[in-house]
Amino acid sequence: MSQVKASILPGFIELLPEEQILFEGLKNTIETTYKKAGFYPLDTPVLEKKEVLLAKGGGETEKQVYELTKGKTDMAMRFDLTVPLARYVAQHYNDLSFPFRRYHIAKVYRGERNQKGRYREFYQCDIDIVGDEKLDLANDAEVISMIQEVFAAMGLEEITIHVNHRKILSGFFKALGMEDLTEVLRILDKYDKIGWEAVRDQLRDLGSTEEQEKKLYEFIHLTGSPEEKLHALEDLVAMNEDLKVGLDEMREILSLTKAYGLEEKYLDLDLKIARGLDYYTGVVFETSLNGHEQIGSVCSGGRYDHLAKHYSKKDLPGVGMSIGLSRLFYQLQEEDLISMEKKGPCQILVLPMDGFVKEAIDLSCRLKNQGISSFVYKEHGKMKKMFKYADGIHVPYVLILGEEEVKNQSVSLKDMRTGAQEQVAFNEIADHIK
Amino acid sequence: MSQVKASILPGFIELLPEEQILFEGLKNTIETTYKKAGFYPLDTPVLEKKEVLLAKGGGETEKQVYELTKGKTDMAMRFDLTVPLARYVAQHYNDLSFPFRRYHIAKVYRGERNQKGRYREFYQCDIDIVGDEKLDLANDAEVISMIQEVFAAMGLEEITIHVNHRKILSGFFKALGMEDLTEVLRILDKYDKIGWEAVRDQLRDLGSTEEQEKKLYEFIHLTGSPEEKLHALEDLVAMNEDLKVGLDEMREILSLTKAYGLEEKYLDLDLKIARGLDYYTGVVFETSLNGHEQIGSVCSGGRYDHLAKHYSKKDLPGVGMSIGLSRLFYQLQEEDLISMEKKGPCQILVLPMDGFVKEAIDLSCRLKNQGISSFVYKEHGKMKKMFKYADGIHVPYVLILGEEEVKNQSVSLKDMRTGAQEQVAFNEIADHIK
Repeated sequence: MSQVKASILPGFIELLPEEQILFEGLKNTIETTYKKAGFYPLDTPVLEKKEVLLAKGGGETEKQVYELTKGKTDMAMRFDLTVPLARYVAQHYNDLSFPFRRYHIAKVYRGERNQKGRYREFYQCDIDIVGDEKLDLANDAEVISMIQEVFAAMGLEEITIHVNHRKILSGFFKALGMEDLTEVLRILDKYDKIGWEAVRDQLRDLGSTEEQEKKLYEFIHLTGSPEEKLHALEDLVAMNEDLKVGLDEMREILSLTKAYGLEEKYLDLDLKIARGLDYYTGVVFETSLNGHEQIGSVCSGGRYDHLAKHYSKKDLPGVGMSIGLSRLFYQLQEEDLISMEKKGPCQILVLPMDGFVKEAIDLSCRLKNQGISSFVYKEHGKMKKMFKYADGIHVPYVLILGEEEVKNQSVSLKDMRTGAQEQVAFNEIADHIK
Repeated sequence: MSQVKASILPGFIELLPEEQILFEGLKNTIETTYKKAGFYPLDTPVLEKKEVLLAKGGGETEKQVYELTKGKTDMAMRFDLTVPLARYVAQHYNDLSFPFRRYHIAKVYRGERNQKGRYREFYQCDIDIVGDEKLDLANDAEVISMIQEVFAAMGLEEITIHVNHRKILSGFFKALGMEDLTEVLRILDKYDKIGWEAVRDQLRDLGSTEEQEKKLYEFIHLTGSPEEKLHALEDLVAMNEDLKVGLDEMREILSLTKAYGLEEKYLDLDLKIARGLDYYTGVVFETSLNGHEQIGSVCSGGRYDHLAKHYSKKDLPGVGMSIGLSRLFYQLQEEDLISMEKKGPCQILVLPMDGFVKEAIDLSCRLKNQGISSFVYKEHGKMKKMFKYADGIHVPYVLILGEEEVKNQSVSLKDMRTGAQEQVAFNEIADHIK
């Protein structure tokens, strides 16, 4: 028989079973946190009409989209979960109650340049809240607070949420007389990589004055708590409408995050953050892991006031955030921030002596009925081979069942991590494990 | 702004939020059952190399595959979860412990003819056990027993698992001197649709004798328990090697399903069942819902002794089963076999009076910390609008928070299903709900 080499596409990833268990653990933690906050689960097709997914058009994303054609239909694979959400709320507007709160944990596809820790198929774990015409700022505060909640649930307490507001940016630059916001922000975005001098040189090329550069330097180098920075900002330039709205909204949001129990130590007002310019309209945020800032943002999002503009005449403002879980999982391993202790697929593996498979199955079923995950190794063979299997799957407990054990209704339960063995009656095994 | 009509591809499906909650409920039940039996979670890419996915080639499936090309790479979307499993065990052979047990619950893609309840993107919920060179028949029994377990967990107790064995089929037809097994089985497969007379006519066209037809009629019309049918079979034709192996294996498997606690009433030996001819080698099975047989099999599978033959020189025998959940969910609704009672995204919705949003948020956070899913309606507006929202999302409990409530640290908790209201102290709400 002619054979094909077993391999997956470059840039794609799959995990070994014991890694997959850890990944599922994180994914479940995120989902549980989202559910507890009353977000609906949502599931939309991976394949959509090309004209729908690319309604916005342009930009880097479009080049990365996986497109296909079947018959006369042009299709594309989703590259994020936000465009499908926009399409969904527009399409099902009459069947939804607003604010519509949903989480969506699923794979998205981008034909990006192949590089370490960046995958062409990866999980996004999103929450969004979408309003009908209006959406209170308390929702922005809730989403920001959820970041801390979900990372804490994953055991990642040491994070900083960097917040900014698009209207603070536009207001500030208007006040300075710098009108080409897009270009200025594109340059500013490079600050972390190239430093101030290089940023200033590029601004100079754009025609900036020394005064403008000085103010900008002060702007991005303000220090203190978010409130202190907002206060300092008021003295830095003359007030205008955008700036006022930005400052007011930012203060309102910060105040509401307190109500959500978010401590101030998790928040940093970072005036360099702009994010997608043609998309976000209010608060924007990124999240870094303290002491591991170089890995970049692990959770980002913000407020967009015109989510469904490509599909609906209604104004459907939203606020949301997204965790790129596949990349995060890679980074947590690289940075040694997650316990990679291998976990087995069940709690007790039952090893039958020759001729006692049925009794072993019966005991295993009884354990399952008592809420203990378990199965029987059924391949016969020597004890050594069986224990090698038990080791291989990292099962925490093993028990052996033979004539003696059935007669006494009692087994020797072995803790595979410590090697300790204990004699336990059949009907006490479940309690013993718990 | 030019707009695009919000719609999804024909043949694709997405659910409304309250349906999605029910679907997730079934999916979680299946996953929990699979996990309790010690199956590893597995997740493989949706997109694979075309040469890998289509290594087997030929057949209806290939025509239905979604293919795409990016750069010089020919890719395809998976059309089932078994081919990726075969590729996975071949590729990661050295890193796996055998028997390798995995579940995989994920979407697959087939460009089938568009028809009701058949989707081009649908969930499969699979378990498989893969051995290294050998795999004990007790695994076949375990997989068959899992069918009953998982359907019972979904509240579907009334099922029949129709089992057969490929070697019983081949042995029987050899004994009859009917050698063109493929053609005979293709005709026999139509029995349920076209009836015996038509089947006989087609066999006659194939050159069958009256004696052969008579035996075949008896074969597929045997009655009684599986053991009784197996016994009757021995008298029907002369024994041969295939038939003997088939009968012995079938008996062994049936006996082992008893050890797994599967009652005989769930089992039916159905000698018409053949399934994929070029694939299954031993036991095969389909599952019907009693009284709803016309919807067809809701869970199928069997034993395949050469799972990874296209990717590995090793013999990796497997046994597995698959539930097509998207289709099943549709059928359960159509047949009225599932409660479609709408469930809310959380247990308690907190409605704040004007000026009490922060206090409402605080209370909602306290409830969440006590394990009650909850959120706050934050859009201001009149009581009527708020209750309309509560109705719209089908939340079971609502509470209103204003000055009086904060002062008394007590709220009126409304059961939205009964309309009953009770005065409950802040710190007793969680207990009250539980």
